[in-house]
Amino acid sequence: MSQKLSKCTYILNNCPNVKTYACVGGKKEGEGPMGKYFDKINNDPYFTTDTFEKAESEMQKQSILIALRKGELKPTDIDFMFGGDLLNQCVGTTYGIRDMNIPFLGIYGACSTMAEGLLLSSVMVDNNVGGNVLAVTSSHFCTAERQYRFPVEYGGQRTPTSQWTATASGAVVVSGEDAAPYVRGVTIGTVQDMGVTDANNMGAAMAPAAYETIKQFLTDTGKTASDFDKIITGDLGKVGTRLLLQLLGDDGIDISKQHNDCGLMIFDCDDQDVHAGGSGCGCAASMLCGYFLPQLKSGELRNILFLATGALMSPTLSQQGESIPSIAHAVWLSHDKQ
Amino acid sequence: MSQKLSKCTYILNNCPNVKTYACVGGKKEGEGPMGKYFDKINNDPYFTTDTFEKAESEMQKQSILIALRKGELKPTDIDFMFGGDLLNQCVGTTYGIRDMNIPFLGIYGACSTMAEGLLLSSVMVDNNVGGNVLAVTSSHFCTAERQYRFPVEYGGQRTPTSQWTATASGAVVVSGEDAAPYVRGVTIGTVQDMGVTDANNMGAAMAPAAYETIKQFLTDTGKTASDFDKIITGDLGKVGTRLLLQLLGDDGIDISKQHNDCGLMIFDCDDQDVHAGGSGCGCAASMLCGYFLPQLKSGELRNILFLATGALMSPTLSQQGESIPSIAHAVWLSHDKQ
Repeated sequence: MSQKLSKCTYILNNCPNVKTYACVGGKKEGEGPMGKYFDKINNDPYFTTDTFEKAESEMQKQSILIALRKGELKPTDIDFMFGGDLLNQCVGTTYGIRDMNIPFLGIYGACSTMAEGLLLSSVMVDNNVGGNVLAVTSSHFCTAERQYRFPVEYGGQRTPTSQWTATASGAVVVSGEDAAPYVRGVTIGTVQDMGVTDANNMGAAMAPAAYETIKQFLTDTGKTASDFDKIITGDLGKVGTRLLLQLLGDDGIDISKQHNDCGLMIFDCDDQDVHAGGSGCGCAASMLCGYFLPQLKSGELRNILFLATGALMSPTLSQQGESIPSIAHAVWLSHDKQ
Repeated sequence: MSQKLSKCTYILNNCPNVKTYACVGGKKEGEGPMGKYFDKINNDPYFTTDTFEKAESEMQKQSILIALRKGELKPTDIDFMFGGDLLNQCVGTTYGIRDMNIPFLGIYGACSTMAEGLLLSSVMVDNNVGGNVLAVTSSHFCTAERQYRFPVEYGGQRTPTSQWTATASGAVVVSGEDAAPYVRGVTIGTVQDMGVTDANNMGAAMAPAAYETIKQFLTDTGKTASDFDKIITGDLGKVGTRLLLQLLGDDGIDISKQHNDCGLMIFDCDDQDVHAGGSGCGCAASMLCGYFLPQLKSGELRNILFLATGALMSPTLSQQGESIPSIAHAVWLSHDKQ
């Protein structure tokens, strides 16, 4: 049963657990500093299919099947699932899962999708709606470039504030088992729009959303940054991270000791020529599933606050001169039940 | 608290109620046989904005604000909301709600969005996660045409099986009040793909999803078609309706007396030149909010099973030769608690 602290913040008193998790990446992700934490690296950007979009679906399928295998589960053991991705109509997910016969609820939160899916799965399980609930997401550099910017074949010049969409996927299964890591609480984000119109500067557009949600979570729970080993954002990159720390600092909240941004972890920004860092739904999802959840399970980490941020714009509305609304959802994960 | 009947079917024992609802439509919808049931008709396809996309956002905003007004609620009375639409990145919703400051969870279910949003809102309220939870969706003929097919200015020829995307929006607020109409149960759909590749024949692609979900709901609950005054599908149109009745008939299930398809209600197929019927997220949403919910409230209808079906394809994957996966979610609504 969930305890309501505010309209958007809930404590999950049954402490659902993340029973199993997996992540899959592409070649560049495998070559990066976090390469060894992926369950599987595909060096072929087509993932043995004939289009980048089908490759992304194949990647989601792989991360789900590996997560199931690690948890000794079959697709029939999953009650239902949440999933979505960056592609128009979320086809990375819908084509990736269509043969699995798992009841499906589609979500769209851009790069916040992993946090949204984990949040919804956890709330469901906390209230005994579903026993094993799965959440999945992905992003693929080549599908995102051609959909949001230019096809990679065009060879467009990238601006210094631009980020590199990670080719990666992550999947988690939330269950009612009594084992670490536990999901202890969640905060649902609210759309923020500070008027940023530069589609090559997503970090700046998304930082205010992370700021609002972190502040909301800390206010509602009465916790401070030092209650957490890590406060993790999804893909703010260099620019967004600087803004986030400044916005919180102006309110007297210092998270600089706890903060990690998945976009600054997944690649070596200088050596891998990714400018302001990594991005994409798969960036936060893979770092959560590959790097943070194992440490929460083992107890190396005791408490983390995981946020993924999403830019809720479309190329069509950017072309119409609109600014970029963004959102961040937060999930409190812990090694301990109390 | 929700009672699990199967992986995907849940009975909502606290019987959340649909406290308020509203729908907004365009000129053609106002001229159709259901025109008088809309709360507001906009004769300007731009809804006083300068692009069709901004018009769709304006329409969602209108339906939310009218629903709130009818329920004597302010945006601050809403704990959180679910929303999505057909546009890439669901921008009809994200730009429509960005100034409302309501915690937001984005969903994508194509034309099944109203059922998905109502389902999720109801499950949340049934478990006391949120007191007033809102769900909204929309579709706009001109945005859908240029995104999925051709810009309307092109004047493309329409095939006989094609459907006409309704310019319409619907919004509901689910609450814990003890008043009709109540939400009694839900079934989460599973992705179905029978290999239909014709993007101008969505009814045929979606009928198997409606068939599977209706069968699943009836099996899990032990109910029969005659337990319902109406069994309502979202936008199967002429072709999909014929297929659905045939698929169920082959299993000995006859819903012909109870079945209504919103796509066949919203327009006069012959006089309004819409070929196989209406479609779009807003089609089912507006018929639910404008026509069915008021009758459930008054008691003219006692029990309905509301399904909206979604085609989970994208133009990109259709161009790559892929078939069309589809999904249907079901919500059992009742005048009575027991």
